[in-house]
Amino acid sequence: MNDIDAPTDHSGLRVMSTEESLHRLASAGIGRVAFVRSGEVVLLPVHHVVHGMDIYFRTSGASKIEAAADHRAVGFEVDEYDRSTVTGWSVTVSGSASLVDEDELVSELARLDSAPWPVADATDSVWVRIRPDEISGRELLAH
Amino acid sequence: MNDIDAPTDHSGLRVMSTEESLHRLASAGIGRVAFVRSGEVVLLPVHHVVHGMDIYFRTSGASKIEAAADHRAVGFEVDEYDRSTVTGWSVTVSGSASLVDEDELVSELARLDSAPWPVADATDSVWVRIRPDEISGRELLAH
Repeated sequence: MNDIDAPTDHSGLRVMSTEESLHRLASAGIGRVAFVRSGEVVLLPVHHVVHGMDIYFRTSGASKIEAAADHRAVGFEVDEYDRSTVTGWSVTVSGSASLVDEDELVSELARLDSAPWPVADATDSVWVRIRPDEISGRELLAH
Repeated sequence: MNDIDAPTDHSGLRVMSTEESLHRLASAGIGRVAFVRSGEVVLLPVHHVVHGMDIYFRTSGASKIEAAADHRAVGFEVDEYDRSTVTGWSVTVSGSASLVDEDELVSELARLDSAPWPVADATDSVWVRIRPDEISGRELLAH
C-alpha cells in the first residue's frame, strides 16, 4: 500500500483509490457527519455501517433525522492518527442524506450492524442513508 | 470526573462542563472542521491549537482559507473512542471562522504549535480562527 510511486496531492499526502477509501470507511467504527441546520454547521460523531456504496447510521436524534429527510447535503469523515509516529489517514465524503424506509434494507442493516454502540431509544430509531457524490482518501506517511 | 450523579442527555451520555470541553479540545491533537462550499458540506481533519476560548489551525489549502475569509459558519469536532470497551467522548463546536492577520498572535500560535503535523507549504500558510458560539461535550461511559 505504501508504494513510493503512489500519487500524492499538493500537501504530499498519498491519494487512496476509491476502492481503498471505501474499505477504510467500512472498517472504521465511528465517523462524523456534518450538515447545516438553521444556518449553523452541525458536526456529530456516529457509529456507521457501509453497505454497497452507501453509508448508513442509526439515530433517534431529531436533528439528524430532520437534516436527512429532504436529501440535504451532508459531509462524512473517518480518520485515524498516531501522534507518536505522525502518521495517519482520512477518508472524506460529500453526499446527500435520506431516510431509509425499505423494510428489507432495515433488516439487512440491523444484521450488518454488529457493534454495540447505544442509540437513545432503539425502538424509536431510524436509519439514515448517505449517498456519496465524492469520496476522497488521503494518507500521511512517516517521513 | 465519572460522577454517577453527572448530568446526562436524552441518550444517556454524560454532559461535560464547558471547562472540561475546552480542556479536551486543547488536549486533542487532531480535530475536524466542517463548512459549506458551493452547496457541498466539506469535512476535513486538521491539526489545531486552542488559545483562550478560540480554536486555530494552519492551512495552505485554498478551500479552507476561502471558507474562513468571510466569517462563515463552521463546525468543529474532536473525539476519542475505544471499540473494545465501547467508551468514548466527543466535543462539538458551532462557530464562525476568520483569518488571523495579527502578527503578534501569529507568533504566539507558532510558539504554541509544538506538534509536527505538516502543512503543504509552511511559508505560504495562514492561521484560521474558529470562534465558538456553542461548545458541547458528551461522554459515553462503560455500562
